[in-house]
Amino acid sequence: MDLHGTFIAITTPFDEREDIALGHLQHNLDRWLAEAIDGVVVTGTTGEAVFLSLEERSRLWKFCAPQLQQAGKRFIAGAAAESTRATIEMVQVAAESGAEAVLVLTPSYFKPGPDALVSHYTAIADASPIPVLLYNYPAFTGVEIPSYTILKLAEHPNIHGMKDSSASLPRLATVLAHRPDFQMLTGLASGLYPFLSMGGSGGIFALGNIIPGLIAQLYRAFRSGNLVEAQRLQLKLAPLSEALEVRYGIPAIKFAMDQIGLCGGTPRKPLQRPSVSIQNEVDELLYLIFKSE
Amino acid sequence: MDLHGTFIAITTPFDEREDIALGHLQHNLDRWLAEAIDGVVVTGTTGEAVFLSLEERSRLWKFCAPQLQQAGKRFIAGAAAESTRATIEMVQVAAESGAEAVLVLTPSYFKPGPDALVSHYTAIADASPIPVLLYNYPAFTGVEIPSYTILKLAEHPNIHGMKDSSASLPRLATVLAHRPDFQMLTGLASGLYPFLSMGGSGGIFALGNIIPGLIAQLYRAFRSGNLVEAQRLQLKLAPLSEALEVRYGIPAIKFAMDQIGLCGGTPRKPLQRPSVSIQNEVDELLYLIFKSE
Amino acid sequence: MDLHGTFIAITTPFDEREDIALGHLQHNLDRWLAEAIDGVVVTGTTGEAVFLSLEERSRLWKFCAPQLQQAGKRFIAGAAAESTRATIEMVQVAAESGAEAVLVLTPSYFKPGPDALVSHYTAIADASPIPVLLYNYPAFTGVEIPSYTILKLAEHPNIHGMKDSSASLPRLATVLAHRPDFQMLTGLASGLYPFLSMGGSGGIFALGNIIPGLIAQLYRAFRSGNLVEAQRLQLKLAPLSEALEVRYGIPAIKFAMDQIGLCGGTPRKPLQRPSVSIQNEVDELLYLIFKSE
Amino acid sequence: MDLHGTFIAITTPFDEREDIALGHLQHNLDRWLAEAIDGVVVTGTTGEAVFLSLEERSRLWKFCAPQLQQAGKRFIAGAAAESTRATIEMVQVAAESGAEAVLVLTPSYFKPGPDALVSHYTAIADASPIPVLLYNYPAFTGVEIPSYTILKLAEHPNIHGMKDSSASLPRLATVLAHRPDFQMLTGLASGLYPFLSMGGSGGIFALGNIIPGLIAQLYRAFRSGNLVEAQRLQLKLAPLSEALEVRYGIPAIKFAMDQIGLCGGTPRKPLQRPSVSIQNEVDELLYLIFKSE
Repeated sequence: MDLHGTFIAITTPFDEREDIALGHLQHNLDRWLAEAIDGVVVTGTTGEAVFLSLEERSRLWKFCAPQLQQAGKRFIAGAAAESTRATIEMVQVAAESGAEAVLVLTPSYFKPGPDALVSHYTAIADASPIPVLLYNYPAFTGVEIPSYTILKLAEHPNIHGMKDSSASLPRLATVLAHRPDFQMLTGLASGLYPFLSMGGSGGIFALGNIIPGLIAQLYRAFRSGNLVEAQRLQLKLAPLSEALEVRYGIPAIKFAMDQIGLCGGTPRKPLQRPSVSIQNEVDELLYLIFKSE
Repeated sequence: MDLHGTFIAITTPFDEREDIALGHLQHNLDRWLAEAIDGVVVTGTTGEAVFLSLEERSRLWKFCAPQLQQAGKRFIAGAAAESTRATIEMVQVAAESGAEAVLVLTPSYFKPGPDALVSHYTAIADASPIPVLLYNYPAFTGVEIPSYTILKLAEHPNIHGMKDSSASLPRLATVLAHRPDFQMLTGLASGLYPFLSMGGSGGIFALGNIIPGLIAQLYRAFRSGNLVEAQRLQLKLAPLSEALEVRYGIPAIKFAMDQIGLCGGTPRKPLQRPSVSIQNEVDELLYLIFKSE
Repeated sequence: MDLHGTFIAITTPFDEREDIALGHLQHNLDRWLAEAIDGVVVTGTTGEAVFLSLEERSRLWKFCAPQLQQAGKRFIAGAAAESTRATIEMVQVAAESGAEAVLVLTPSYFKPGPDALVSHYTAIADASPIPVLLYNYPAFTGVEIPSYTILKLAEHPNIHGMKDSSASLPRLATVLAHRPDFQMLTGLASGLYPFLSMGGSGGIFALGNIIPGLIAQLYRAFRSGNLVEAQRLQLKLAPLSEALEVRYGIPAIKFAMDQIGLCGGTPRKPLQRPSVSIQNEVDELLYLIFKSE
Repeated sequence: MDLHGTFIAITTPFDEREDIALGHLQHNLDRWLAEAIDGVVVTGTTGEAVFLSLEERSRLWKFCAPQLQQAGKRFIAGAAAESTRATIEMVQVAAESGAEAVLVLTPSYFKPGPDALVSHYTAIADASPIPVLLYNYPAFTGVEIPSYTILKLAEHPNIHGMKDSSASLPRLATVLAHRPDFQMLTGLASGLYPFLSMGGSGGIFALGNIIPGLIAQLYRAFRSGNLVEAQRLQLKLAPLSEALEVRYGIPAIKFAMDQIGLCGGTPRKPLQRPSVSIQNEVDELLYLIFKSE
């Protein structure tokens, strides 16, 4: 599966009772799908996947699938559990629900080592009817997939790429040195341009919820060889990326969505609404982005 | 609820297809319930709770509840999810399935801070029909419940105690200094005697799967004022505790169970069978424990 | 060397220009040496050793040595550098300056593994004219000495004990299980009683700067078999220990000294004076300790 | 001071007694100064600075200064201690010994926060006769300089840039977004090209000891707009960079130097010679680099 391009890691809107609010999601999708993005990840980290039941995930996947297909956008489902077997079950449901590929986060709790990761991902890729992407997010999981483990897994015909939210440059370069065709995606919008310059395929971004157009513009500037413009856009969005993707996370992303007319709302608990001082900082960063666009 | 005493954090046996093997569990329960332990935690960390669906947990709880009651043993259910609402749902199922109390691990993925922990546990304790125990395991979750957060939560009438698998002495002492009646349980068998000496209530142990009698003997020695014997037993079991509870975890615990005629079996993947060198080390430690008992 | 008892990890007083203020130190020593403590560590972590040149350390050692001897107190010098050879040089100066033993912190920067630690400490113990104590402080160094590395090093005739500021109970119990005679000291006053109950020798405390008498009283209560009193004192001092030894460190310890008529003063930069809110918290904890003594 | 370009973080050669071997250093300098690099860092992390006394550092600086000047290479001295005042003293000696700028690592032991870092670096920059570079290396120090702390410090007229060995892309992008003129250098050769593409100035590399020419070639390819070649060279050197700069460190770097006719030798203890399996891996990586150059 071709993973070049930019993807939104979409949020999951909830109503006041914390139930999934498909109407709100529709409102957001209408805006997002009009943008020049290449696809969407449903039920990734930003979608609060760890708070969703398999039934809820499937409902979201089925809701999004036809719309994404009609809009010509690729559809990746976040599908991961702590055990290999629960992950395989989830991956199969994702495929039946219309996903074109699955993004599979490493297990976290028991801190699997390289051998356990190889056996885990191999079993999943063997069983999955659709392509598998590795997903590395050590800040949340406490687990890292080492370079040579990635390279071993990259030999599996059903493992098509990897999202690395740690944006480690040595890992990126070492993987691409051996396998320049392996599709490496970043999870940090502030690192998109350098990832592309090294030969990365693109990225999957929480920030895509807010400024999908700007991110797609950066991507296209790069692909068309307009590197000055790509770098300018990269620096322009960097402070917002660092604030929302690194420091403040989902509550601030949802708050920012509300500020620009999307349906952000509040996350499920125990995530908390951002403090007033964070809200003010986000407001200021949004102003700086939008005043000049 | 009175939480004094020693509890086994029981393993969950699986068959070759990784399905729950209730026959194997029965075999184990028959042995465990004949021991002088005070109770059992079903679906705790050692029960591979993160690998079990709510339906599987409930099946295990319902299987164990009548037997525990008949044997006069207390029954605590491990019940925790990443979101507050899923945890509340699980806690309610645990109560309906016969549990007397729930042991509620901190959320892990989004690293909740003190305010989020207070609101999370307060909501759960408000909703739970049975007493709630806090559960702190930073090595696996990356989250710590600070002393003064514990003390705030200890004021809730439905929060009856805490299991601290980090065995932090400053936390224990600070909590007990303010609330000597708050029931603090350790999760490390190698720390039981010092926990008791400070005023702790007891502990919940993975090692209880293997040597429940020895642990109960240590506990009784302490309570009857035989401190020399308590200390002797503490040092006797320490190397096995460190190997199984700190270094090698569930795969080694299940291997040790197999070696002494219990049904350990293999854990769910991605947990892996212990290496031969670990097996040999465990065999040696078992020999040292049992040769002299 | 007999390491049983309680030791103060004394602070190093500085004047406004951050030069060592021996007059202030004399004032403090006069108070401390009148207490029932067993000895003193000069230039340990609390002495801001990482900020002191070898010449400054030696000056402090020579200043303290005769007074300690006259008062019948044991004298341990903190002596550690990143390289093995610089540590050996420092240990030799400590011996020449009158120290009876050296407390040797693990190297930190390059994160030595078990083999490197064995070769490091063996070379130092071979070269040192006086007994060597291992010193483990992972919160500051990022390095841990594993149990079996300690046991290997405990066979060296010139390694007489260990200070473990992590207060890990599994490590303590595993070491004492194999070598009940190896002298294990804690660095957390809130963990003194449990350490003693397991067979530990005593401890070296930053809190000793403030309440040496209370700590010594706890120690003596334990040794004379008055465990109720030992436990009472343990809980009494725990909140102050957690605040000063775990959360706020040297700046707060020096502030607390000033509040009770000792010469604390300010630490060397980049350590900063404690904030007003920390000062207030320390004041309150001091009040709770002293009102009732 | 202009910090554009590529710099070698040179190793410090020792003889069998672990004394500095200036003859060996001369041998290496003769090779290095013939390369198209822009300058040299003496007594950085790779120079085993934490093992060197001030007198030894000064001897190395004075030895290198005239040769660097004559060769038209810039000369940066690594100068850092745990206290502000010892760092200021060292910086002044560096200036007197001929350094053109100082690279000042964050303190590590007491984990300074943002306020302490601002006051530390401001005092140093005020006192230093030569330009100061910030130096962030969290893998070794456990300390991070946050983006907005960097930006505050970047306003100081004597702080001219920063080396970030964590190669964090969000930090890089956020700093350059606000201050595109602030000179950001990477410490990972595998991240040079992406750093440059974002607007970074260049880098300071341990790998420069081994392949200074290849690194300089990459830099020049980028500056002359030959991005295809820059990317090709980046990927070519990445596996060696990850092995030597991220995984195995100084012992392996010195081993690699020996293999290509430079004087690497052994590091000071407690650093240990690399194992045979690491030696073989390094040999293989060297072969892959040099066979095709």
